[in-house]
Amino acid sequence: MTAAARFISFEGIDGSGKSTQARLLHEALIAQGRDAILTREPGGSPGAEDIRKLLLEGAAERWSSETELLLFTAARRDHLERTIRPALDAGRIVICDRFADSTRMYQGLRGDDLRALVDRLHDLMIAQEPDLTILIDIDPETGLGRAVARGGDELRFEGFGGALQARMRQGFLDLAAEAPERITVIDGARDVELVARDVRDVVEARLP
Amino acid sequence: MTAAARFISFEGIDGSGKSTQARLLHEALIAQGRDAILTREPGGSPGAEDIRKLLLEGAAERWSSETELLLFTAARRDHLERTIRPALDAGRIVICDRFADSTRMYQGLRGDDLRALVDRLHDLMIAQEPDLTILIDIDPETGLGRAVARGGDELRFEGFGGALQARMRQGFLDLAAEAPERITVIDGARDVELVARDVRDVVEARLP
Repeated sequence: MTAAARFISFEGIDGSGKSTQARLLHEALIAQGRDAILTREPGGSPGAEDIRKLLLEGAAERWSSETELLLFTAARRDHLERTIRPALDAGRIVICDRFADSTRMYQGLRGDDLRALVDRLHDLMIAQEPDLTILIDIDPETGLGRAVARGGDELRFEGFGGALQARMRQGFLDLAAEAPERITVIDGARDVELVARDVRDVVEARLP
Repeated sequence: MTAAARFISFEGIDGSGKSTQARLLHEALIAQGRDAILTREPGGSPGAEDIRKLLLEGAAERWSSETELLLFTAARRDHLERTIRPALDAGRIVICDRFADSTRMYQGLRGDDLRALVDRLHDLMIAQEPDLTILIDIDPETGLGRAVARGGDELRFEGFGGALQARMRQGFLDLAAEAPERITVIDGARDVELVARDVRDVVEARLP
């Protein structure tokens, strides 16, 4: 017996198609006459979007891992307070492209100490999980091939590091194994419409 | 027996003269041929100065207390990593206009829960105190009068709220009573040169 889900996050490695799937789910719910918002992290509220600029602009070494973690957490807190919770309190469905699981992977995979810090900071300052997380799972090479096919910059994607993407994919799958009641894994290597249908089936079974 | 002090912070309520005293101490140490830097919070490193802009610009309600606390902590972490620790590691003296005690007062006095959060976040992400903190103590009305006399905007200072400044003064004195080995209280209601002489005496007794 699973609880009704109104706060739904999408997670996955780069090129997994999760942003596309979040958008398609939002469109499908709106078409059904549901009251749903689509938001994303980092960002999703005016203050968090300003913090996002600090995170995404400038040199890669602009922030240490710990400072970056604090900025992501500040953005998440603002996003929760100003966008997510007010929408949930108004009875709306919230679809969020990335949430805390992304921080657990992107910052937390840099070392065991950092992963512990990610968890402690989350417990102290955020202490909220989505009701349902859709993990769009894809082989990193398929994600890369897809990005190249749609005209992406191959060199840029090579720069992502295939080994890191593979570790991250496994990390997401490990999270899903630890929290199966929250995280549903969907095979993202298929046609986008087939994936979208699976997403809708999972979500519709959980809507209030 | 107190330890040698190379990381020295200045604290005090608005109008206490702590920034002036930090500057005068820096000038005095440089005049003695000491290798000292003068820095400030929020800010003190390129990244922290960018975060400072987010904190000081925009409407007063732009950030919740908790998001503001995360941003101050991100700025402090960057300032510590990029400015303070490298200077200390190079054997320099660091004089800092405000440090974590300001957060304990300005954010922490908003409620007991928030004060506990300030302490837990500090322990998790900063975990460093100055070797010596100079608390410039002044009656809030004297501070206000001084600010008005030097051409400040009286209405703006009235907006600070005398009752809040009085609570903050007492809060700083309470901190000093809890950590007498770190925090030295100096009467800031006297002539600036007399205060500066006392500051120099306290600091010189503690320099390596």
